[in-house]
Amino acid sequence: MAASGSRVKVGIVGGTGYTGVELLRLLALHPNVDLTAITSRKEDGMPVADMFPNLRGYVDLCFSTPEKAALDQCDVVFFATPHGVAMNQAKELLDKGVRIIDLAADFRLQDTQVFESWYKMPHACPEVLAQSVYGLVELNRAKIAKARVVGNPGCYPTTVILGLLPLLEGGRKLVDTAHIIADSKSGVSGAGRKAEVATLFSEASDNFKAYGVAGHRHRPEVCEQLETIAGGPVGLTFVPHLVPMIRGMFSTIYARILPEAMDTDFQALFEQRYANEAFVDVMPAGSQPETRSVRGSNQLRIAVHRPGGGDQLILLVVQDNLVKGAAGQAVQNMNLMFGLPEDAGLRHIAVLP
Amino acid sequence: MAASGSRVKVGIVGGTGYTGVELLRLLALHPNVDLTAITSRKEDGMPVADMFPNLRGYVDLCFSTPEKAALDQCDVVFFATPHGVAMNQAKELLDKGVRIIDLAADFRLQDTQVFESWYKMPHACPEVLAQSVYGLVELNRAKIAKARVVGNPGCYPTTVILGLLPLLEGGRKLVDTAHIIADSKSGVSGAGRKAEVATLFSEASDNFKAYGVAGHRHRPEVCEQLETIAGGPVGLTFVPHLVPMIRGMFSTIYARILPEAMDTDFQALFEQRYANEAFVDVMPAGSQPETRSVRGSNQLRIAVHRPGGGDQLILLVVQDNLVKGAAGQAVQNMNLMFGLPEDAGLRHIAVLP
Amino acid sequence: MAASGSRVKVGIVGGTGYTGVELLRLLALHPNVDLTAITSRKEDGMPVADMFPNLRGYVDLCFSTPEKAALDQCDVVFFATPHGVAMNQAKELLDKGVRIIDLAADFRLQDTQVFESWYKMPHACPEVLAQSVYGLVELNRAKIAKARVVGNPGCYPTTVILGLLPLLEGGRKLVDTAHIIADSKSGVSGAGRKAEVATLFSEASDNFKAYGVAGHRHRPEVCEQLETIAGGPVGLTFVPHLVPMIRGMFSTIYARILPEAMDTDFQALFEQRYANEAFVDVMPAGSQPETRSVRGSNQLRIAVHRPGGGDQLILLVVQDNLVKGAAGQAVQNMNLMFGLPEDAGLRHIAVLP
Amino acid sequence: MAASGSRVKVGIVGGTGYTGVELLRLLALHPNVDLTAITSRKEDGMPVADMFPNLRGYVDLCFSTPEKAALDQCDVVFFATPHGVAMNQAKELLDKGVRIIDLAADFRLQDTQVFESWYKMPHACPEVLAQSVYGLVELNRAKIAKARVVGNPGCYPTTVILGLLPLLEGGRKLVDTAHIIADSKSGVSGAGRKAEVATLFSEASDNFKAYGVAGHRHRPEVCEQLETIAGGPVGLTFVPHLVPMIRGMFSTIYARILPEAMDTDFQALFEQRYANEAFVDVMPAGSQPETRSVRGSNQLRIAVHRPGGGDQLILLVVQDNLVKGAAGQAVQNMNLMFGLPEDAGLRHIAVLP
Repeated sequence: MAASGSRVKVGIVGGTGYTGVELLRLLALHPNVDLTAITSRKEDGMPVADMFPNLRGYVDLCFSTPEKAALDQCDVVFFATPHGVAMNQAKELLDKGVRIIDLAADFRLQDTQVFESWYKMPHACPEVLAQSVYGLVELNRAKIAKARVVGNPGCYPTTVILGLLPLLEGGRKLVDTAHIIADSKSGVSGAGRKAEVATLFSEASDNFKAYGVAGHRHRPEVCEQLETIAGGPVGLTFVPHLVPMIRGMFSTIYARILPEAMDTDFQALFEQRYANEAFVDVMPAGSQPETRSVRGSNQLRIAVHRPGGGDQLILLVVQDNLVKGAAGQAVQNMNLMFGLPEDAGLRHIAVLP
Repeated sequence: MAASGSRVKVGIVGGTGYTGVELLRLLALHPNVDLTAITSRKEDGMPVADMFPNLRGYVDLCFSTPEKAALDQCDVVFFATPHGVAMNQAKELLDKGVRIIDLAADFRLQDTQVFESWYKMPHACPEVLAQSVYGLVELNRAKIAKARVVGNPGCYPTTVILGLLPLLEGGRKLVDTAHIIADSKSGVSGAGRKAEVATLFSEASDNFKAYGVAGHRHRPEVCEQLETIAGGPVGLTFVPHLVPMIRGMFSTIYARILPEAMDTDFQALFEQRYANEAFVDVMPAGSQPETRSVRGSNQLRIAVHRPGGGDQLILLVVQDNLVKGAAGQAVQNMNLMFGLPEDAGLRHIAVLP
Repeated sequence: MAASGSRVKVGIVGGTGYTGVELLRLLALHPNVDLTAITSRKEDGMPVADMFPNLRGYVDLCFSTPEKAALDQCDVVFFATPHGVAMNQAKELLDKGVRIIDLAADFRLQDTQVFESWYKMPHACPEVLAQSVYGLVELNRAKIAKARVVGNPGCYPTTVILGLLPLLEGGRKLVDTAHIIADSKSGVSGAGRKAEVATLFSEASDNFKAYGVAGHRHRPEVCEQLETIAGGPVGLTFVPHLVPMIRGMFSTIYARILPEAMDTDFQALFEQRYANEAFVDVMPAGSQPETRSVRGSNQLRIAVHRPGGGDQLILLVVQDNLVKGAAGQAVQNMNLMFGLPEDAGLRHIAVLP
Repeated sequence: MAASGSRVKVGIVGGTGYTGVELLRLLALHPNVDLTAITSRKEDGMPVADMFPNLRGYVDLCFSTPEKAALDQCDVVFFATPHGVAMNQAKELLDKGVRIIDLAADFRLQDTQVFESWYKMPHACPEVLAQSVYGLVELNRAKIAKARVVGNPGCYPTTVILGLLPLLEGGRKLVDTAHIIADSKSGVSGAGRKAEVATLFSEASDNFKAYGVAGHRHRPEVCEQLETIAGGPVGLTFVPHLVPMIRGMFSTIYARILPEAMDTDFQALFEQRYANEAFVDVMPAGSQPETRSVRGSNQLRIAVHRPGGGDQLILLVVQDNLVKGAAGQAVQNMNLMFGLPEDAGLRHIAVLP
């Protein structure tokens, strides 16, 4: 494992989407990273900064084909690709000693049947999946440090799992786990950089809607993690919504407090659980977090509410979906995997206003 | 009561806010309305179209002081004023035979103690309040037709009450009324046209937040109506959120289906209840309404969801907060009160994109 | 020619874009129009209101193939299609006595060489083009009334030509016509409802840029008209920009006043020229028009500025690019062509806020 | 003068506006800065991070009164205050050896009569003004390094001056300096964090307008600088516009090429002039810069256009108005004044998307 002053050689597969450019933004100024390759078959030869002009002067790389990219010379490869790409290339890279962080869904769900029913493809490497680790640092820190393959969590799951973790772990019986509601709202960048009518400015601006009400891929991912944490079944209603903003994610989570847990100090419970977490901020009682307070940063903020002191617990969770919900969390995983300070390259103050 | 071809003389008190300009937009082209006066002490003498340039060529009125406005010559006066104004002027106008539609909260809550605790002022005319009618047409059509004073509903309450009405009325036992959740989202115009830092473009744009989590004035209003409808106590958790869009309101309502009601066809229940309502659109099963589908129109749309056929009912309700949630509903009330076609002056197709 | 109480049978070819839905919004409530068909080969059989939910309850039509649409039974057909479609179908419809209003560019440029160099296709019916009329009502009212084919102006040209018309027509020598600058800004809907990365919400929001600086199709269109008006060559620099708003267009036009014209009262010149125009509003001296003052309406507003009384004239012109800049102007043309009141179906007050 | 590893003690007067929070964002992570005080009489005692939640975990300071702030112990004090504050406190601080960077207008205009006519107050310390330096680094680098008082440029002037500098300096006769046009566009944050109706979300969103057409304070500031650079009179028409985005500024500058300069290679001229400037990026020929390419960064980008190779030169200039247009430029000035690397604390990649 690398010492904290050492260098990590990094490759990125598929850097033409929003998680790709965000990885580049974070890694280009990371004190321990040497960016060695970024692949895009379609854009082979194009300077990355031509596609993403914010990188002018900071990233000199050109996109290249995977063949030219010499990814097997990297210490770690990030996959910022559509679902299904990483699992087909994982084994070969692992055999060369390259570690893998997948920002798509290939290594998020351990249950391959659930994976196949939601992603409409068979899993290409169940044996690699079995040794992979779900890359939610605050849940799996020790395992991630030793992992060779990390499945970076989905954006919604990051907010919902971290919002419920203190209530469910350790065999606690605090809330009615059969009827949890997560009413989540995402900025439009969560839909990615694909040319689609539904996410055009003229469609998504000055508008608000729910989507995926009948079912969304992130629900089984959340449920698998929550059930592992709680050690039993969890009933979750999950409704995602689309907000006319670029970045930002907000989950309003409703959990009913069990009669025997009415005396719990939930504020203290959350503060203690996350006291040592650099990137989870439990806000003072009564706070109302805003997505802009984390825009461009790896911070996730939680506020704990219990209106009127009743039996309804409300958790408000915000993050930048492209940072803590994607690229930032991926870098946090890399830092852990290579023995670097967990916040290396991740100390950004959110851009406000 | 006026016949449908007749004219209604209309005055507006306090037309410098968003509900004021929206009333003007609707009333200026209303086929049965003569706009006779609009008051603003501060802007006395200023042409309305100087403040609101969209009205140039359509509204020639100037703002005038209440003294000059001769409101007692009107058939009806709309109050588009801060809370507490209408109740101080109501009696005098009523004595002159003028009818009143208040777009603020003075005639929304029958319980004056609740009013006083939330609006921090004693109620000035409880006896007028007692004879006033809560102006939700789909709930109180017959009473409104005869009313001399109408309290126009709040924007959030309109969505939540109409979203729950079919489930609660008629003594039905369909959902757990003790634990209803309304997760509501509003465009920024709901905060009005007041100079405040929190609703500046640079604060509210590209951002999402909850507010009023500990308590919001619209919760007691909803509860009073729901309890009247249900004939018993209703437990409601209400969390409003602010969306970076100008107009539009979206309520995601969660109700647990009672075991004995699992066989109910909720889609049919809603369709039947609102079959004859011009301004309530129960969308086909599986629909996902968008706020822009009602932008600038008096339509309210509802979609009924029950993921996986389980015990969780989800109601998605959209409206334009300034139209069905305020000025449009007020005009709908006026139409009823004066025997005009309910949709007179209200046939606008939403502006999309 | 139809009398003003009569009915016009209308067909629309290609109604799945923004000009299409806007035509539907305007025509569905037009007092003299019977919407008989709307074509889309791809969406054959789909209710129009399923694609554009704002039309629910107002438009019952389904998209149909051109074959089924019986367009030859219409009095007029609007083409809301890509460039090149109308010119291929025009002759056949004209032969059946159907009149045509094309919202694309096929009948905008009389110079077919210019057309071919900018639109990269030969013109399919130069003889029809020769008898078509450029549908800028305020310029060509008499001709349009008699036209069988109208080329509806581009959005930018509408603002630039109407902004300069009073200065150039009638052989006036008021400004330096060799060096006119139009710095124009458009909302994103001007780019249409095509799936493209550049107009995604996450690309176009919270951003401002110029485009087409080296050359834009609307420049030759403006020049052809201006040169006809001025009776001589006109030098125009035209720079379009993209504004993060859905609708709205703003042109800032700079013209240098000739020494011999320094005494001209330009405010009066503009007021007189447009005194009888229902849809051109010359604002009072010193005004600063806003695009939202025309959002959803067919109004175009002009403010005339001359800072410090010097030799620099600045014209500020606003319109809704989808209404006066496209569908509204098309309906205005139809009204003229069928002897209807020019503002029939076009009396909408802009939606503000 | 401090060596590059040394520490600078920094105070901020008036940190409750957008330039204040932006200074804090930049300075909190600046490797050579010790933030020692931030004053706000009104918010005395409030943690800065309570007002600006993005700073939670990075800035522990509370606002304090000027009396408690011990500003005279600082090496440098930034004034992020309304116009007129810095000039009243400058002398006292200077006498204590504290250097001053004013982000308001007090030290921008050397002509006090012009200052007084535009800012409606007499200048309080003309003798300090006389020794102050206009803090545009790329223009005045050597002077700034030795300055005790720096007037940080206005946001618009930064774009217009840097856009024209290569054309005017060194006695060059390249463009018609009597008739330069700057058509500028600013995000709403340029209006500051004041509670005003005109910059409410519901007023400024989905809208575009010009303002200050008759005259704007930044015009005399630009003119004073340009005339110094050109060594003679400059005629400038300046029209600012408001764009519905938070950050970002775009100036489209039109200059007529003189007959004798038609052979000039303007692209090369700009590239050479700024070859060694870390924060001025002359983009490749044909580029079309976007404001988001500099969002949150101190970069300013320029593209040089000459459509059709004619006599009209068009310069497109973008910056983040709060960074290069305000706080970032102020930090750049500080770095110079204290002998630090010019980019210390300023290496941020723009946040895109």
